[in-house]
Amino acid sequence: MNRRLVLQAGATAAFATLLLGSAYAQSTAAKRQGIVIQVSDNDPAKWNLALNNAKNLQDDVGAANVDIEIVAYGPGISMLKLESPTGSRIADAAKAGVKVTACENTMRGQKLTKDDMLTGISYVPAGVTEIMKKQHEGWAYLRP
Amino acid sequence: MNRRLVLQAGATAAFATLLLGSAYAQSTAAKRQGIVIQVSDNDPAKWNLALNNAKNLQDDVGAANVDIEIVAYGPGISMLKLESPTGSRIADAAKAGVKVTACENTMRGQKLTKDDMLTGISYVPAGVTEIMKKQHEGWAYLRP
Amino acid sequence: MNRRLVLQAGATAAFATLLLGSAYAQSTAAKRQGIVIQVSDNDPAKWNLALNNAKNLQDDVGAANVDIEIVAYGPGISMLKLESPTGSRIADAAKAGVKVTACENTMRGQKLTKDDMLTGISYVPAGVTEIMKKQHEGWAYLRP
Repeated sequence: MNRRLVLQAGATAAFATLLLGSAYAQSTAAKRQGIVIQVSDNDPAKWNLALNNAKNLQDDVGAANVDIEIVAYGPGISMLKLESPTGSRIADAAKAGVKVTACENTMRGQKLTKDDMLTGISYVPAGVTEIMKKQHEGWAYLRP
Repeated sequence: MNRRLVLQAGATAAFATLLLGSAYAQSTAAKRQGIVIQVSDNDPAKWNLALNNAKNLQDDVGAANVDIEIVAYGPGISMLKLESPTGSRIADAAKAGVKVTACENTMRGQKLTKDDMLTGISYVPAGVTEIMKKQHEGWAYLRP
Repeated sequence: MNRRLVLQAGATAAFATLLLGSAYAQSTAAKRQGIVIQVSDNDPAKWNLALNNAKNLQDDVGAANVDIEIVAYGPGISMLKLESPTGSRIADAAKAGVKVTACENTMRGQKLTKDDMLTGISYVPAGVTEIMKKQHEGWAYLRP
């Protein structure tokens, strides 16, 4: 019986390890930091604030420790047009690992094509869906 | 002993199924999409943005797949007054399944009764509590 | 064999209790209500809205049932300067248990020291990090 108990204890311990390991993986995953920053105003001051916020976050917690995505949609789409006054700052942010995303819904409404937009940015069918999805994945939300 | 091991393996497997099943149910529940849209500005442009955002979301992910609630409070309460310029759009949104909610706290402060408000809307004692509660239930937040 | 099965059942039950107990503790912890209120506009009307929102929340759910933190950063930092028109309201909020926090990043940028600020407030290295962290801890977000 000792041997059987040992076998059983072993199996139970293995099972517990499996479960707790999975719980640990989940809690670790939950600790992965992400934040989606909304830009929906046609206001360069707001665009600079969004870029400042992204930079300050990276400086504060380390660029490697936080996923940042800036989503521009609605009246905010102009932030990502070729002639945007924040073009060079956006290039810097992208180089530093910040994802910058334009809403194709808004682009269609304003008759914009990718040729009208800055290079190095990403696209999503609908900015508002992206913002919702990221939050459902555990990301924080920020509206500068 | 083989038989005992089989029994033990069976019990362990059943237990694992029970636990993993419950974990699966939780993750499925978490995937149910919801979003609360805040309207707190006295600005018809913002009201139209909120309504656009709701419509684009429904068009993008399917109205059946997302719960949307627009909560108007503070200076945003005027969106839901009888004379609101967005009255017909709000009726359309409600017909499409968007919940539109007024803050009774704000109404009291502005001496508004339900007779002053659009029909087909909902009421909560405090808009800010509703916005907090929805997020605690796992809903995303959007402030147009 | 009966005795062994009883032992095994006992061990399994104890293990299940341990796991379910832990799951219960987690879900109870998740129900603790918290909300972080962002103030990033240089606009006393917005500061009053933020303070109204905090007060209405406390009145509605009970001050003991909700953790509230107002984080002022960027152009919103002026809310917490000595000469702020909302100084006495902020003192009242702090007395009522609302945490009011200034961003040291912003203060450095505007050459402000703690001597320039209201008493009874808290400080964080970066307001945007605080806002992100609170959401990752399960707090709701509000931007008046």
